[in-house]
Amino acid sequence: MAKNAEIIAIGSELLTPDRVDTNSLIVTDHLNGLGVEVIQKLVIGDDRELLTEAIRTALSRVNIVVLIGGLGPTEDDVTRDAAAAALGRPLLLSAEQESILIKRFRSINRPMAQNNLRQAYLIEGAEALPNPNGTAPGQFLFTDHGAIALLPGPPRELRPMVEQQLVPRLLPVLPRQVIRVRTFRITGIGESDLDTLIAPVYSKYTNPTTTVLSSPGDLHVHLRARCETAEEAEALLREVGNPIAELLGDRVYSEKPDDTLDTVVARLLRQHHASVAVAESCTGGLLSGRLTDAAGSSDYFVAGYITYTETQKKQILGVPADILKNFSAVSEQVAAAMAEGAKRVGGATYGLATTGYAGPAGGTEFDPVGTVYIGIAGPGGTRVIRLRYGGDRYRTRTMGTQAALDLLRKTLQTAN
Amino acid sequence: MAKNAEIIAIGSELLTPDRVDTNSLIVTDHLNGLGVEVIQKLVIGDDRELLTEAIRTALSRVNIVVLIGGLGPTEDDVTRDAAAAALGRPLLLSAEQESILIKRFRSINRPMAQNNLRQAYLIEGAEALPNPNGTAPGQFLFTDHGAIALLPGPPRELRPMVEQQLVPRLLPVLPRQVIRVRTFRITGIGESDLDTLIAPVYSKYTNPTTTVLSSPGDLHVHLRARCETAEEAEALLREVGNPIAELLGDRVYSEKPDDTLDTVVARLLRQHHASVAVAESCTGGLLSGRLTDAAGSSDYFVAGYITYTETQKKQILGVPADILKNFSAVSEQVAAAMAEGAKRVGGATYGLATTGYAGPAGGTEFDPVGTVYIGIAGPGGTRVIRLRYGGDRYRTRTMGTQAALDLLRKTLQTAN
Repeated sequence: MAKNAEIIAIGSELLTPDRVDTNSLIVTDHLNGLGVEVIQKLVIGDDRELLTEAIRTALSRVNIVVLIGGLGPTEDDVTRDAAAAALGRPLLLSAEQESILIKRFRSINRPMAQNNLRQAYLIEGAEALPNPNGTAPGQFLFTDHGAIALLPGPPRELRPMVEQQLVPRLLPVLPRQVIRVRTFRITGIGESDLDTLIAPVYSKYTNPTTTVLSSPGDLHVHLRARCETAEEAEALLREVGNPIAELLGDRVYSEKPDDTLDTVVARLLRQHHASVAVAESCTGGLLSGRLTDAAGSSDYFVAGYITYTETQKKQILGVPADILKNFSAVSEQVAAAMAEGAKRVGGATYGLATTGYAGPAGGTEFDPVGTVYIGIAGPGGTRVIRLRYGGDRYRTRTMGTQAALDLLRKTLQTAN
Repeated sequence: MAKNAEIIAIGSELLTPDRVDTNSLIVTDHLNGLGVEVIQKLVIGDDRELLTEAIRTALSRVNIVVLIGGLGPTEDDVTRDAAAAALGRPLLLSAEQESILIKRFRSINRPMAQNNLRQAYLIEGAEALPNPNGTAPGQFLFTDHGAIALLPGPPRELRPMVEQQLVPRLLPVLPRQVIRVRTFRITGIGESDLDTLIAPVYSKYTNPTTTVLSSPGDLHVHLRARCETAEEAEALLREVGNPIAELLGDRVYSEKPDDTLDTVVARLLRQHHASVAVAESCTGGLLSGRLTDAAGSSDYFVAGYITYTETQKKQILGVPADILKNFSAVSEQVAAAMAEGAKRVGGATYGLATTGYAGPAGGTEFDPVGTVYIGIAGPGGTRVIRLRYGGDRYRTRTMGTQAALDLLRKTLQTAN
């Protein structure tokens, strides 16, 4: 049996603006673990015709079709009917399921409504999947070229049924395969520049597959190799991943999939027994916010000084008046003085500073809106970098914050 | 034109066990607002063939097809190609879009990679939807019996494009009905308490419909009336909305749908020609970050002092050592002294301070993890409030920030 699946989540409530389908994540996680790829997910209302059509299409396209929800006792619950129609098989009353239902209602001391009996009908040839947490049994059926499963929608019924009933039935019929993933977490390069750089390497391979995820200032490259053995998969990841790592150089801040730039910086600060004080202008608190996000950040974060006016830069950080006057508040010189001021006033190992034009107003010919200077002062001296972003205020603040964290990371990584 | 829609979200990352499609909620909300029902939602990977097939099926089934994502510059981004193929139309290079792209890259002073040009191709007959927040324009095209839209995936590009481009194009071609919405933007009450309070009012009505949207510390109640005339709709909104407004009192910070607590506070500060300086402990920069988020915030924001240690609280804010010693850094007295210190050191109209136990470690029997003191010092004197949150670090910091902004709002609203 091959390895493609489609998940169909059923329920009109899942088509409102307030609800997302999270059940499919549970199923996806387990299917991926079996080497099965989910190629499509569908959310569909309680509409029998539409659902029948969707199941029929899915059965013709993939090997494993998983239906979630719509197994309740009411007229709204159309999954059994639609699946039977799509398969061209009748629904048959299962005496065993009927007696399980009757017993269940007796055990909770409630009368069984007539419509509950709907839950005792199985598609001809289907096996019932026991549901210790609800009244609706699941159903499982091998088809000509795969399998179909009907699973209940409530997560506390769904999850155990996937783990204890669905996975054990699929495992023996799937080809043995191993999946290994290699992740690069990257900053300091844009998405299209990244792609231009590494596509010549990865595009020669269909295994591993390569995905690039992007959020402002942060890119993740995932290489996913599927092979018969772990050794083969790991060899493939080396073959494709090593040249990528080389091309990216120190723009890769981590290869650990759960790392963020924040956790990497925190780990480096702890490793170096170093502390940091921050002076912010254009980032307005975002940098301090990121540095204090993690539990225990008081171990290395001393203080942040958001000096939004020139007076405050002088008064709090001791930036010399003539530097402000000669070079303006957005300048290499002021970024350096702010970083040094933060280090001194905070009594910290490192002072980290941002000053720039977040916009939309402000800027000069030489330093237009979107320019950010980032200064770092530490045991190895003071250094300033200058960056230019696209001029959108949100982006300049977010990217400037990310770049400041990254400068701290690189400085720590090259420190003794 | 009739009223059924299908939404297709494109991106292999949306088929992993870690990601849900939330973009479709934004689109669903606006389509519902136009009286359009979403009958099916699909999530599909970066697979050109599969997507083409899905678009073709959708076009044959519904009137409005909305595609989200896959408009980036890389080979992975297949939405343009697939939509063109499904429609049987060519993609044509738009000279106008090309020059917009070139201009955008020039403005951010970056070379444009060759593959970025992919974003300048439009389906024959499609109108480009401007995207001020990114490089990928949307596309909109009337088909034989409806319309298709291609929208970018990043939410901050998607949302304005839906509101400002998609809705205005659909509105005139949909059957006339008048929809009026009344929105309450609320803080300082939890979702279930809110519902307990107002459900007795709204649950008697099916028109207007009532939706409650919730994010940490911020609730929106939307009443949506659909009638044949504006007068009828507005009368209904008064009938249901006025008693709700009364029950909520000053927890409603705005009835303007585009307001956030941040914009309301900024407006009040400007109206009062007031400035603010911030002293933060547990919120670690988030409060300053919120206050400096808007363009022009330097008109009222003077400085933020993120004093994470006791030494810094004394040194920067002049919090007396004996107060710290007698009452500890997380106390009513220290919150007051921090607020007064921020006001004085910043030379601002108001000083606003937070101190608390964000956790997971720390806390005392009287002030467990999740306790936040918020102090405000202003022309009318100093005031401190004490709040207790559920103990999760992220939530305590976010909710504490929101509560501090809200205390500033209420103080400004009752000031002369």
